[in-house]
Amino acid sequence: MKADNYVFTGKGKVKLRELPTDSSKDGVEREKILEKFQKNLVKLDELQNCFYADGKEGIIVVLQALDAAGKDSLIRRALAGVNPQGVKVACFKKPTEEELSHDYLWRVNQVLPRRGEIAIFNRSYYEDIITAHVLGLKDTYDMAPRITGKSEKKFIERRIEQVVNYERYLYENSYRVVKVFLNVSKEEQKKRFLERIDRPDKNWKFNVNDLDTREQFDEYLDCFEEVIARTATKESPWYAIPADDKWYTRYLFTEILIDTIRRTKPVYPDLPDDQKARLDECKARLLAESGDGQESSEDAG
Amino acid sequence: MKADNYVFTGKGKVKLRELPTDSSKDGVEREKILEKFQKNLVKLDELQNCFYADGKEGIIVVLQALDAAGKDSLIRRALAGVNPQGVKVACFKKPTEEELSHDYLWRVNQVLPRRGEIAIFNRSYYEDIITAHVLGLKDTYDMAPRITGKSEKKFIERRIEQVVNYERYLYENSYRVVKVFLNVSKEEQKKRFLERIDRPDKNWKFNVNDLDTREQFDEYLDCFEEVIARTATKESPWYAIPADDKWYTRYLFTEILIDTIRRTKPVYPDLPDDQKARLDECKARLLAESGDGQESSEDAG
Repeated sequence: MKADNYVFTGKGKVKLRELPTDSSKDGVEREKILEKFQKNLVKLDELQNCFYADGKEGIIVVLQALDAAGKDSLIRRALAGVNPQGVKVACFKKPTEEELSHDYLWRVNQVLPRRGEIAIFNRSYYEDIITAHVLGLKDTYDMAPRITGKSEKKFIERRIEQVVNYERYLYENSYRVVKVFLNVSKEEQKKRFLERIDRPDKNWKFNVNDLDTREQFDEYLDCFEEVIARTATKESPWYAIPADDKWYTRYLFTEILIDTIRRTKPVYPDLPDDQKARLDECKARLLAESGDGQESSEDAG
Repeated sequence: MKADNYVFTGKGKVKLRELPTDSSKDGVEREKILEKFQKNLVKLDELQNCFYADGKEGIIVVLQALDAAGKDSLIRRALAGVNPQGVKVACFKKPTEEELSHDYLWRVNQVLPRRGEIAIFNRSYYEDIITAHVLGLKDTYDMAPRITGKSEKKFIERRIEQVVNYERYLYENSYRVVKVFLNVSKEEQKKRFLERIDRPDKNWKFNVNDLDTREQFDEYLDCFEEVIARTATKESPWYAIPADDKWYTRYLFTEILIDTIRRTKPVYPDLPDDQKARLDECKARLLAESGDGQESSEDAG
C-alpha cells in the first residue's frame, strides 16, 4: 500500500523534513484517490464489523501532529462511516488537576478500548514526552525530587522507555497500537492559520498562542523525529504521512486502518456446537409462532 | 524494624516454608506488641496526614495471601485509625466480563491513587500471574492466538516481566508499590476454616471450593515463591510476614506502612511567599469581625 512509503518500524533515523508533505511525490491523481477512498470506507465498515464480532484484539490509533495539520477533520471524514459502537475517539487536551495528580498514563488507561473495539487518540501520551520536553514542563510537576530532580535529558529518556514498555505490554495483551504523525509543511500551516483568522466559522479553532508554538515548529519536528525513531517498532509502527493535501491524508489513513485490522485476521465467531445443533429447532420455533406475534412478545421479556 | 526480617528486595531465593508463620521466632511478648501497635496507629495517622498534605508521592500496598490468612481483618484493624479520605481499599475479586475484555492491568489502573493517597489492594494483579498459573486460565482467555498460543511457561514469564515493568513505571512516576504476603501455615488455615464452618456469623466467609484450593496449598506456595523472588526489587519490595498470630501480623503491617511513608520524607507544604506575607493581614481581618459572625457568613459564600 502507498502508506508503506511512510512507515517506521524502528530501523534507522527519521528525517521528517525530507519526507513529502503533499501528494506530488507519489504521482497520484486526486479523482482516482477519491474513488479509492470511498471504496476504503466501505471496506473499513465491513472489516470493523467483523473485528468487533471477533473481539480477540483491540486497536489503538494514536494521532499526533503540529497545529492545523488536520487531525480533527481527518477523524470526522475518515471515520464517519464506521459504527460508533465499536470505534471510540478520545481527545487528550491540556491535563486537568486531577490528571496531573496521577501518573501520566492514568488518563490513557481510563479510555483504553475493550478487545473488539478501536480507540482513536486525538493526541496522546506522546504529548507527555514531546510537549513536556519542548515546553520544559518537568519542573512544574508536583512529584518527588527523585523524579523532578533528574536532568531533562534523563527524564525524557525514561518516558520514552516507559512508552515503549507500555506499547509492548499492550501488544502482549492482545492489543495493537499504531501511531500516525500528520506531516504538514510550515507553509501549509500558515495558510490554514490565515484561513482560521479570516473565516468567522473557523475562528474558534484559532488561539493566539498557536503562533508561539509555530515559532517552535523546528524544535517540535526535531523532538518528533527523535521520539518516532525511538518508539517505532515492528509491532507498534509509526507512519508520518503527508498532510498538506487532505484528500490524500484521508486516503492513506484508511489504508493504515484497514491494514491494521487485517493483521488481526478477524473472523466472525462460530456458534458453539451445542447452539449450532439447535439452530434448526430455533428456526422451527420462530416459524411456528402464531401470525399476530402476541405470543412472541410475551416470550421476549 | 522487625519487619525487616521478612523483606525481599530481589536478591536470592524465597523459601516461604522456611520462614516463621508465627511470632515465636522473633521472641516478642504479646502485651508489648499490642502496646506498640497502639502507638503505631497514632504514628500512622500523623504520618498519613502529612503525606496527604505533601501530595508528592502515591503509595500502593498490595496484600496477597492464601485463603484465611487474614487479609480482611488486617485491613479492618490496622487501617481503622487513618483518614479514609486519603486511604482507599480496592478489592480484586474474580474478574468480570468487562474486566476480562480489557488488558489485565486495566482494572488496576481504574483505582490507582492520586499522589498523596494510599491505596490498599486486597488481592491484585498478582492473581493474574499466580491464580492464572495454578488454575491454567490462559486457555480460557479470549485473546489472539499469538498470546494464548504461547506455552504456559512463556505466558507466565511475560506477565512477570510486565509486572516488574509496571511497578518500575509507577516508581518512576512518583509512586511506591510495597507488597505484603501473609504467610499462614497450613495448620492455622485448617483451624480458621473449621471456625468458619462452626460459627454461623463466619459461614459467609467459607466456600466449599476453598477446600479444593487448600489441596493446592503447596502449588500456590511454590508459585508465590517464584513470583516473589522475580518481582521483589529495592524500590518495590515484598514482605512475607507471619500470619498465624494476628496481633503480630497487624503490628508488622503497621511497621511496613510507617516505613514506606517515611521513605517519601513527607513534609507539610509551605505556603507560597506571597500568601505567607498576607497571613498577618488575614488574622487581623478575622479578629476585626463583629462578634455575632453575621458579616463573616455573608463573606463566606
